[in-house]
Amino acid sequence: MKLSDKKWLIEQTQFEIDGKYETCFNLANGYMGVRGTFEDNHKVERLGTFVAGVFNKSEAQVGQLVNLPYFMGLKFYINNEYLDIHKCKVLDYYRALDMKQSLLYTSMLVEDEQGRQTRLEGYRFLSMANQHLVGLSYTFTPQNYSADITVESCIDGSTTNMFDNPWERVKHYEVVNKEVLSTGAIYLEAKTREDKYEIGMAAKLKVSREGNNVANRKRCVPLGEVIAEYVEFSGVENQKTTIEKYVSVVTNRDQNHISLRDTASNKLGAFYEESMNRQLEASIDVMKGIWKTSNITIEGDSKAELALRFNMYTLATLVNETDNEVSIAAKGLHGEWYNGHVFWDTEIFVLPYYIYNNPKAARTLLEYRYNKLDAARKNAAINGYKGARFPWESADSGKEETPRWGFDYKGNIMRIWPGDIEYHITSDISFAIWQYFRATNDIDFMQKYGAEIYVETARFWASRVEYNKEQDRYEINCVIGPDEFHEHVNNNLYTNYFARWNMLKAIEVLDMLQKDYSTSYKVLCHKIAFNKEEIQQWKEVIDKIYIPIKDENGIFEQNEGFFDLEDYVITKYDRNNMPVFPDEVNIVELDRYTLVKQADVMMLLYLLGEEFSDEAKAKNFEYYEARTMHKSSLSPSTYCIMGLRVNDHKKAYEYLMRTALVDLEDNQGNTYQGIHAASTGGTWQAAVFGFGAMYVTKEGKLGCHPLWLPENWESYTFNMMWQGTTLEITLTKTHITMTMLQGDIPLTLEIIGQDYILNPDQKIEIKR
Amino acid sequence: MKLSDKKWLIEQTQFEIDGKYETCFNLANGYMGVRGTFEDNHKVERLGTFVAGVFNKSEAQVGQLVNLPYFMGLKFYINNEYLDIHKCKVLDYYRALDMKQSLLYTSMLVEDEQGRQTRLEGYRFLSMANQHLVGLSYTFTPQNYSADITVESCIDGSTTNMFDNPWERVKHYEVVNKEVLSTGAIYLEAKTREDKYEIGMAAKLKVSREGNNVANRKRCVPLGEVIAEYVEFSGVENQKTTIEKYVSVVTNRDQNHISLRDTASNKLGAFYEESMNRQLEASIDVMKGIWKTSNITIEGDSKAELALRFNMYTLATLVNETDNEVSIAAKGLHGEWYNGHVFWDTEIFVLPYYIYNNPKAARTLLEYRYNKLDAARKNAAINGYKGARFPWESADSGKEETPRWGFDYKGNIMRIWPGDIEYHITSDISFAIWQYFRATNDIDFMQKYGAEIYVETARFWASRVEYNKEQDRYEINCVIGPDEFHEHVNNNLYTNYFARWNMLKAIEVLDMLQKDYSTSYKVLCHKIAFNKEEIQQWKEVIDKIYIPIKDENGIFEQNEGFFDLEDYVITKYDRNNMPVFPDEVNIVELDRYTLVKQADVMMLLYLLGEEFSDEAKAKNFEYYEARTMHKSSLSPSTYCIMGLRVNDHKKAYEYLMRTALVDLEDNQGNTYQGIHAASTGGTWQAAVFGFGAMYVTKEGKLGCHPLWLPENWESYTFNMMWQGTTLEITLTKTHITMTMLQGDIPLTLEIIGQDYILNPDQKIEIKR
Repeated sequence: MKLSDKKWLIEQTQFEIDGKYETCFNLANGYMGVRGTFEDNHKVERLGTFVAGVFNKSEAQVGQLVNLPYFMGLKFYINNEYLDIHKCKVLDYYRALDMKQSLLYTSMLVEDEQGRQTRLEGYRFLSMANQHLVGLSYTFTPQNYSADITVESCIDGSTTNMFDNPWERVKHYEVVNKEVLSTGAIYLEAKTREDKYEIGMAAKLKVSREGNNVANRKRCVPLGEVIAEYVEFSGVENQKTTIEKYVSVVTNRDQNHISLRDTASNKLGAFYEESMNRQLEASIDVMKGIWKTSNITIEGDSKAELALRFNMYTLATLVNETDNEVSIAAKGLHGEWYNGHVFWDTEIFVLPYYIYNNPKAARTLLEYRYNKLDAARKNAAINGYKGARFPWESADSGKEETPRWGFDYKGNIMRIWPGDIEYHITSDISFAIWQYFRATNDIDFMQKYGAEIYVETARFWASRVEYNKEQDRYEINCVIGPDEFHEHVNNNLYTNYFARWNMLKAIEVLDMLQKDYSTSYKVLCHKIAFNKEEIQQWKEVIDKIYIPIKDENGIFEQNEGFFDLEDYVITKYDRNNMPVFPDEVNIVELDRYTLVKQADVMMLLYLLGEEFSDEAKAKNFEYYEARTMHKSSLSPSTYCIMGLRVNDHKKAYEYLMRTALVDLEDNQGNTYQGIHAASTGGTWQAAVFGFGAMYVTKEGKLGCHPLWLPENWESYTFNMMWQGTTLEITLTKTHITMTMLQGDIPLTLEIIGQDYILNPDQKIEIKR
Repeated sequence: MKLSDKKWLIEQTQFEIDGKYETCFNLANGYMGVRGTFEDNHKVERLGTFVAGVFNKSEAQVGQLVNLPYFMGLKFYINNEYLDIHKCKVLDYYRALDMKQSLLYTSMLVEDEQGRQTRLEGYRFLSMANQHLVGLSYTFTPQNYSADITVESCIDGSTTNMFDNPWERVKHYEVVNKEVLSTGAIYLEAKTREDKYEIGMAAKLKVSREGNNVANRKRCVPLGEVIAEYVEFSGVENQKTTIEKYVSVVTNRDQNHISLRDTASNKLGAFYEESMNRQLEASIDVMKGIWKTSNITIEGDSKAELALRFNMYTLATLVNETDNEVSIAAKGLHGEWYNGHVFWDTEIFVLPYYIYNNPKAARTLLEYRYNKLDAARKNAAINGYKGARFPWESADSGKEETPRWGFDYKGNIMRIWPGDIEYHITSDISFAIWQYFRATNDIDFMQKYGAEIYVETARFWASRVEYNKEQDRYEINCVIGPDEFHEHVNNNLYTNYFARWNMLKAIEVLDMLQKDYSTSYKVLCHKIAFNKEEIQQWKEVIDKIYIPIKDENGIFEQNEGFFDLEDYVITKYDRNNMPVFPDEVNIVELDRYTLVKQADVMMLLYLLGEEFSDEAKAKNFEYYEARTMHKSSLSPSTYCIMGLRVNDHKKAYEYLMRTALVDLEDNQGNTYQGIHAASTGGTWQAAVFGFGAMYVTKEGKLGCHPLWLPENWESYTFNMMWQGTTLEITLTKTHITMTMLQGDIPLTLEIIGQDYILNPDQKIEIKR
């Protein structure tokens, strides 16, 4: 294993326990994620081992992504004396996330109290080639002594969720089996306390020098909730010994019908046989494939390049395109916050990356929503509505999983309302399907799943609106829009606009189906008891739904009455250049002011940009930007893109870096709790639809209209998949270059307002 | 609670994790013991929670005293943020073992990273009045802030034995139940893995200010092998809040027939109701009773006084006079070394303290041996002998529990032989019974238990000896004597001498019984198929057993051939004044040299002092002292006493301090593994039979013949119980004072060679 060059490395050079690195050094492979805590830890760190889709509730308010047994554990003993790194002098230290190869590299030289110096150097990885396999490989070198060295490898079933929170700490599983397998591996099996999921983990050490076994003593022993393997070897001064830990992880989600233990054992056995290197190579090959068609390079701005790459790396390793029962959580597979739940973050912020880089994964994520459609139907029904209403927070069942109670900015207990009234998630999902369909023409998806979702969501909106007789209009009252500072508002522009869009799009999709895919159309009508008369009701609503835009080119009122609130403009910023609440503002009564949490009107102007004038965008940017607190990490990326559209370059670049560095620089202060997944997706959108200046025309053509590149960006290159092709786009101050890397159809592209045909393997270079 | 004065305190003034203090600050009440680790710890300390008699083997070589769930755990959170003492600045710190009251006191002021200063002050105790109860009582004072404070109390079932030893770590129990009781207490139940013992622990917090509840939020939750109670209160700047943790501990050893849970719950409920203070007072009352009749004061030498007191305190809290199925382990209830096993340490070193301070406890300890007599019979039988052979190491079953494998001084694996051939334990127990009987006249014990042990041990010896036809003598070959550097030796003087003594004493006891208690005698004869003809065989052995003393007043050969070994005299001492092996010596072939591990011949000359001349004692002291490495903590006390007898005052004082401070100054370097119980008993003997100059005449009279007191000892006072009376003896440079504190019979005492009658409530003062 050779470490990649600096352009691919996120580095830590000081030895310290830092939650930021636990999150940023998280490894994931779509199937599972493990936080970047040290192999040897004293449980003052936030351990995290997550398998996508494994949820449990027990004492928690709602289902939580389970913090599973920790299988990364490795400790060392010198002559049976524990080498406690936390008590050592750390003489040199280096860790790096190698994004090119998807591994976490460590090198450290420590000196114990007796002056013995030990170098530990190596890496760990979650295989991208076989999602059940994890490998750790370290060389242990006694630098100035010889001694018997014992390696302790364990699978530790004592983990809990929220371990440092006295009021929310929960143990979500019980250890139901600990076994030493006939192969000499250790095995631990856990079952979630509500009996839904079973998880099996097997592990085995290999200790060698120059390929030959040097282990001379071994012991495997169950220790309560832990099972441990101990292996001893003779450590010789200045000689490297390689310690490999092979791990396999399986669950009853993926292995429903056979013995978990046997499956874990067989997978481990094959991995062990095949060798660590081979599996690592296979994993790196997968990464190579990903980077080949999903890369960004910025000549002249290595900081921005590295940051963008980190966001793309995170996205690339978060998705499991083979599992349509799971989606992407707000904190990824990187932490416990938001309970591993899926929000609109996935469809609106994260999904575009997949649509344009890995459409198969995008489809899988949308299939997840389809698989939860029945639950969404129930969710509508129990609230008195028709059709399907997607839950604000979704987990394994698809039921509404939003907690009902939480704490405000002052720590007072408060009711959490989005599960009850933040409806826009339902049209967000419809919008995402359209975005996917537009980029892929995946009519198979639309026939099987998409159309059904459109009908059910349109039904929901048609039943959710309230008829205002006086005004002869339909309204949607008592909602929360994207800006969560204002709850129980009436006629939120974003919500109403997208509700109408959703119904319109449903009609359009149904028309298309009826016309071109009539068999599918008939099947659907029978399946969900749909007949065309229903469309008349929708049209009535579409015609009369209140869209609170008074002046098409003016400032849009976020919701009815918003302009009557106490008006504040942000004037103070903290040292991270983040807005600070004006002193006069009471932070537990934010609904009294025009300050907003995050992009709301601006989201609409971005997502449906083709429907709004440049003037409207500029005016609303100016107004709302001055009032947006960015208390959600979902906000800056939108302001980046819109800043470019309205020619506020300086702010656009600031917002790009804010969203791109949200975790690397921990600028929201909560990275320790997990990655900001929406922000990673927002970052990619800011890069491609913002600085990359890509857009889709009303007619569904892909376009590019570069406006501005930062001074130091000599050359800016990124990829996009479109209609089955893979494009490479390079922007410089003077030229636009488009290359078709993969694909066998000619594409019509709109570049700076003019159409070009790009043929397979062709490159177009256009002067700006 | 008011802390006692310095004369009663073992103090620690620096905050550090130090295994010595974990052991020295251990609390015990005979029933259980808990090591002096911090309430809040990160499991890098050696946690220890032991209940006497609870053993398990599982993966271990032999049965081990089980390290049970840790119930002392307490943590604090300030505004839900963990107050990690190990990350705080410790502004002031003080812990003290208050021996007078038997409690561990703590006061510390810590400052967290945000500058918040918190004082924690209070104590914990294991009730001496009710052995199932444990109390912790701390005041928590936010010194410079106000905040919500959460207290976490847990019972932690994740402990293992030998937690930091990769090759011997064992989990001896499984957690079988975790429950929140209807009283709001938390309850954890564990079962040893071999299903023999069940342990129930219940705990509950009380949080108050000025007697009133101030807790305003509470949560109890099972967390895998842990169960936790969380309680919140509003911490107010500069106001003390009292946090009490009530704990009850029960096992199926003491509660065989009813629900463990209900018993634990009821005991806890009564304790909680009664209040912490009341139980503490009751416990202190018990301690008062102990110190009233078992104290030592040395005016002019406060260091020696404190050290002696620490040894007596340890002894007083180690015994459970109500449980004759347990005895005293080599490491007390203070640590895991020697697996909680009982050695000759108990009868030869420890027991005299109880005989002369708490005869009821002494009897209980001897009953333990009687209860294991059947196992000792089997232990003889399976080795081809008759009668009863007590195991070298004894646990709960009474079977031989000595491990067969261990490590030599160089870490090489080696066979451990004492379980096979260190026979003298059997006569040591006989000797102890005699010592007890002589001091108490407890004829009831002798009839019920003592006589039977005498017969069976005499039978053993008569069958163990080998007849040497050539020499017409009985020999005992291939043994280990007290000096364990020499294994497989023939005719060890100590062993042979005591074998004969054992048979002689058996005959004497049987004669007495037949004469004075003929019914008991007949019952015994029937019970164990004994008839007087057997005595003839014993007499034959007694007459012809080889006692390898060539010159009654010369140097005695420790065993046959000892004088032919390579002779070394110790000339080097380390900075603790402990002997250092001569350079030429190979420390894994110690049987080649005359160096001895510990007192062996000198033990005989001490224990049966009345049978040897002063000249013999002086010559052997000179010879063996120069060759004794004191690699056992059992050694210095004997050399102290014998040093006084042979007028080597300087050495005697050195040995006194060495044995008295073995743990307080950690002069064997292994105090972290548990208390040196034998040394505590040896220290008491050195104080009373050495410096106190007490002895028992051949006729069984108590005598005193002071020889020397250290220059600075202005006045030396100690207690002794004798024949149902309690004496106080004060020695000064000029006088001996004897007072009968308790008792209603006149005593004949031999003081400086002359008989005196001491009447109840009388004091005799004699000029020296």
